[in-house]
Amino acid sequence: MAIPIILDCDPGTDDAFAVLLALASPEIEVLAITVAGGNVGLECTLPNVLALVALAGADVPVYAGADRPLLGAFVNETRVHGVDGLGGVALPAGGEPADGVAADVIRRVLREARRNVTLVGIAPATNLALALITEPALAEKVERIVLMTGAWAEGNATPAAEFNAFNDPEALAVLFACGRPVVLATLELTAQALCTPAHLARFRAAGTGRCMRALCDIQATVPLGPRFAGAGSALHDPCAIAWLIRPELFTTRDCTVTMDLGPGPSRGRTVIDRWRRTGAPFNATVLETLDPDGFFSLLGERLARLP
Amino acid sequence: MAIPIILDCDPGTDDAFAVLLALASPEIEVLAITVAGGNVGLECTLPNVLALVALAGADVPVYAGADRPLLGAFVNETRVHGVDGLGGVALPAGGEPADGVAADVIRRVLREARRNVTLVGIAPATNLALALITEPALAEKVERIVLMTGAWAEGNATPAAEFNAFNDPEALAVLFACGRPVVLATLELTAQALCTPAHLARFRAAGTGRCMRALCDIQATVPLGPRFAGAGSALHDPCAIAWLIRPELFTTRDCTVTMDLGPGPSRGRTVIDRWRRTGAPFNATVLETLDPDGFFSLLGERLARLP
Amino acid sequence: MAIPIILDCDPGTDDAFAVLLALASPEIEVLAITVAGGNVGLECTLPNVLALVALAGADVPVYAGADRPLLGAFVNETRVHGVDGLGGVALPAGGEPADGVAADVIRRVLREARRNVTLVGIAPATNLALALITEPALAEKVERIVLMTGAWAEGNATPAAEFNAFNDPEALAVLFACGRPVVLATLELTAQALCTPAHLARFRAAGTGRCMRALCDIQATVPLGPRFAGAGSALHDPCAIAWLIRPELFTTRDCTVTMDLGPGPSRGRTVIDRWRRTGAPFNATVLETLDPDGFFSLLGERLARLP
Amino acid sequence: MAIPIILDCDPGTDDAFAVLLALASPEIEVLAITVAGGNVGLECTLPNVLALVALAGADVPVYAGADRPLLGAFVNETRVHGVDGLGGVALPAGGEPADGVAADVIRRVLREARRNVTLVGIAPATNLALALITEPALAEKVERIVLMTGAWAEGNATPAAEFNAFNDPEALAVLFACGRPVVLATLELTAQALCTPAHLARFRAAGTGRCMRALCDIQATVPLGPRFAGAGSALHDPCAIAWLIRPELFTTRDCTVTMDLGPGPSRGRTVIDRWRRTGAPFNATVLETLDPDGFFSLLGERLARLP
Repeated sequence: MAIPIILDCDPGTDDAFAVLLALASPEIEVLAITVAGGNVGLECTLPNVLALVALAGADVPVYAGADRPLLGAFVNETRVHGVDGLGGVALPAGGEPADGVAADVIRRVLREARRNVTLVGIAPATNLALALITEPALAEKVERIVLMTGAWAEGNATPAAEFNAFNDPEALAVLFACGRPVVLATLELTAQALCTPAHLARFRAAGTGRCMRALCDIQATVPLGPRFAGAGSALHDPCAIAWLIRPELFTTRDCTVTMDLGPGPSRGRTVIDRWRRTGAPFNATVLETLDPDGFFSLLGERLARLP
Repeated sequence: MAIPIILDCDPGTDDAFAVLLALASPEIEVLAITVAGGNVGLECTLPNVLALVALAGADVPVYAGADRPLLGAFVNETRVHGVDGLGGVALPAGGEPADGVAADVIRRVLREARRNVTLVGIAPATNLALALITEPALAEKVERIVLMTGAWAEGNATPAAEFNAFNDPEALAVLFACGRPVVLATLELTAQALCTPAHLARFRAAGTGRCMRALCDIQATVPLGPRFAGAGSALHDPCAIAWLIRPELFTTRDCTVTMDLGPGPSRGRTVIDRWRRTGAPFNATVLETLDPDGFFSLLGERLARLP
Repeated sequence: MAIPIILDCDPGTDDAFAVLLALASPEIEVLAITVAGGNVGLECTLPNVLALVALAGADVPVYAGADRPLLGAFVNETRVHGVDGLGGVALPAGGEPADGVAADVIRRVLREARRNVTLVGIAPATNLALALITEPALAEKVERIVLMTGAWAEGNATPAAEFNAFNDPEALAVLFACGRPVVLATLELTAQALCTPAHLARFRAAGTGRCMRALCDIQATVPLGPRFAGAGSALHDPCAIAWLIRPELFTTRDCTVTMDLGPGPSRGRTVIDRWRRTGAPFNATVLETLDPDGFFSLLGERLARLP
Repeated sequence: MAIPIILDCDPGTDDAFAVLLALASPEIEVLAITVAGGNVGLECTLPNVLALVALAGADVPVYAGADRPLLGAFVNETRVHGVDGLGGVALPAGGEPADGVAADVIRRVLREARRNVTLVGIAPATNLALALITEPALAEKVERIVLMTGAWAEGNATPAAEFNAFNDPEALAVLFACGRPVVLATLELTAQALCTPAHLARFRAAGTGRCMRALCDIQATVPLGPRFAGAGSALHDPCAIAWLIRPELFTTRDCTVTMDLGPGPSRGRTVIDRWRRTGAPFNATVLETLDPDGFFSLLGERLARLP
């Protein structure tokens, strides 16, 4: 039986892979896609999602959500994602968003769900947190929360903070405190999903549908920075989806995460205690290792199923 | 034409005066009363509001809201308000809350309003902030936000922070940033609304209805602490209502308020720049002085109108 | 028997009054004057002290100290004190500073003292703190620490922080933690030492010596800001000296002070718990009220004794 | 010509290796050893240093320094170092410390030095910082500052902070701001100096002097925690010395380090920007990689020279 999820995203080049991987995978039932600003503004991320869903020929409602975090404003990352969020790769326009505000829809879906729902967040956590703050009792209907966010070593938005976490640390703190299992694909995990030109070539060989072509074109626009010495770029967001589909490709560790919400240089840091230094009770599971070959095989195989 | 307001409260002994003052005053049209936890838990503040509305014979819908702040948990103040929030004074049970979550109702009322609505907050700012974070565009329908909160000198929850501000500083920061006029009745203002036993005696002489009796009984339970050398206690919350009705009783000053959201000893402080030290643009108006005689006369006169 | 003190200062217009009040008062024996930057840079405050000591014809060694706080750099306040620290009033050049670094000298004086020494600080606390951090055991030789610093209401460097405290909050925290009695003349106390043009006229009538003339000329340059509606300016620093000489002019309250050392808007705030909210043990005594007539009479009478 | 250094330490099991490596190496001239508390209290670290110097038969003056950081108190780490700091391995008592306070001696040595002096810090940075705060101009006589401290990934005192940095973050901030080159052996570097039982066996084979035997006995007491899966423990402190002797064993990267001085969960973190995210000017060089074979060969060869 497929895992019912709500997918909260902000495409974003790597989000695009995640969205299409989810739509292509029968292990997952996407009940709704909710959209936030983040990688780029909501005025781009929303049409990007609509275009991706149309490209996949999928019938999933898409809802507009937060154009700002709980506090302040989103910082965008156009150097990685381009000013439009998809590296300038023009997709055919998609449909219209469904009626309703993302946080409201998350609440409605949870309220009406007969089976618990997994929340998958690959954007700033604003939409998910707003739902759970406004109606905390709905946490009972959450199966687990799977997030691409955080880092136990260095960040990418700042030296201390990963991008999604930095963009709404207070919202992320709400998720860690909600009492439901939280699973994290951090930057250290996603660095193992290093997508090289060789991977792209293999993808292009594996499938020639419009989705595969679009994703490969998008990924080809991502600049290869010094972090991986020009070898490739991390396919962050699809890791969260891949774990839902094939957890056996991953190793995990239970840990305690404390959000740094202060105004100093570590703002937005997910302070991850993997070695039981604090003695605080566990509130998260970090994905520690990923089998890259298995991951890229899965990704190629699934994306090849799409039109 | 009456000023349409949404009243967000957490009674609370002084909240009780504010709620009944609002209901007794034709200058104000109370569109909805939304309730948060704060002075005591929501499981007490909600029935307290319902009882007060019934006592006044009013026909105003009451909605349950936040039982916790955006982050963490409310700290209650049972030393001042008693474990039930009304000093142990038993009121006849009121009716049922109307359907809907406070933050949703605030959004609905704003959305449907033909005239801009004034938000009056005399509780932690959670409900008001949730509405404006979830649907920021609705700020356009807010006439102004009038709050009993903050302090430019000493706090009462901590040496640095006033109680409502301390209970949800992030929510309060959202209100200061929303772009609409914010008016503050701080602790320095409400200290001028010092309610002494003589005032209570005058109230009892002014009216003998059940509302007046209940309020006087409630206020008589408030401990007189060292802050005012045992002379009385500040009637904080009705100051915000009184300003709406009789602004001529007050002097004001435009200023800049910055919330202290850090984890240190000043967490929750409303850092108020009354003297233009920072040069930042004004984002609030503080009520600086109040005419106590005018205030208590107004209060007595209005409460005497109630059953 | 005179109270032996080390006077740590950064003149500064009001410092000038304090230095000369100390030198003019037989109740006090000034063992050494140590100088820091603060109101203006050390390159000005040091010659200012030397000039004041020469003007008074006093024989007290003066030592150069910190030109920066424990962390960062001093912020100066030339709007109040002028670019030279004395409002542009030219004094005859004084002598040379004595050999030695202020913090070292403080340690030597304490080490060699046969009676415990009172540390009087009317500057950023850098010099005093450095002495006590480097050799903590010397705290035993400290009788008490009397400081002009802090505020329980609004600051003057920022809306949250008083100027000396803001200029080295970490140093001030060291003093509060050293285990010796700390006495604070805060901004609320010094506001009661409001020096008006009438006071200056009375000073000029009380004495015609070069010291009195210089001080009155200096004070006349201090701009009268909005805080006191143009009526005068607070003679902050001499309050600390006056308390040593005439404690009966003051009322006091024991309290707990916590320094805000975070990077947020309350950095440098002396979070003063006068009302026992925290339950933490007392670590300071604040001077709450001052008899202004007694204070100005004392000041006039003493300054008139100087040449 | 030997590099003149002041060695500031707090032995500490790995400090013991560093002290003896320095004393055994002709490339280095140890002008003075200054001691702080840290790994254990000063009442243990001081006799430990004296015993190690005597064991080596060296003639280097040892000075007592800080028994507490600039703010607060040291946290000790007796789980790693034993209650005495040397794992309970009893060494013959050494001599007496030389007269003088460490921070004063550092200033005197710098002042009198004809060649610039390298400061080597393998303890909380208190002593070094106190010297540079008290007499900032002496920074000109500092050749560079080489520290074992910090982490760009996870800490060992807390999940965010390395032990020395956590024990006096304000002092460390002073060093980064002093304007002289700072070189860091962080936890990521020292993890590459993983000392296994095989290494200890090789050490014992390489030399049978009392120094080698003592160090091996001491190191054998260090518990092998989960961080390296029981394989060994990191020989942190000798890395800093080894870099001075054989920099060709290391690769380096210039970067910007910002200290987290706030009160939150990242307090004491060395926020290291290795990837130029902040654009701030470089203020440190991190040692990124170490040749473990070269390092352990150097260590064995040098320690074998000692008695």
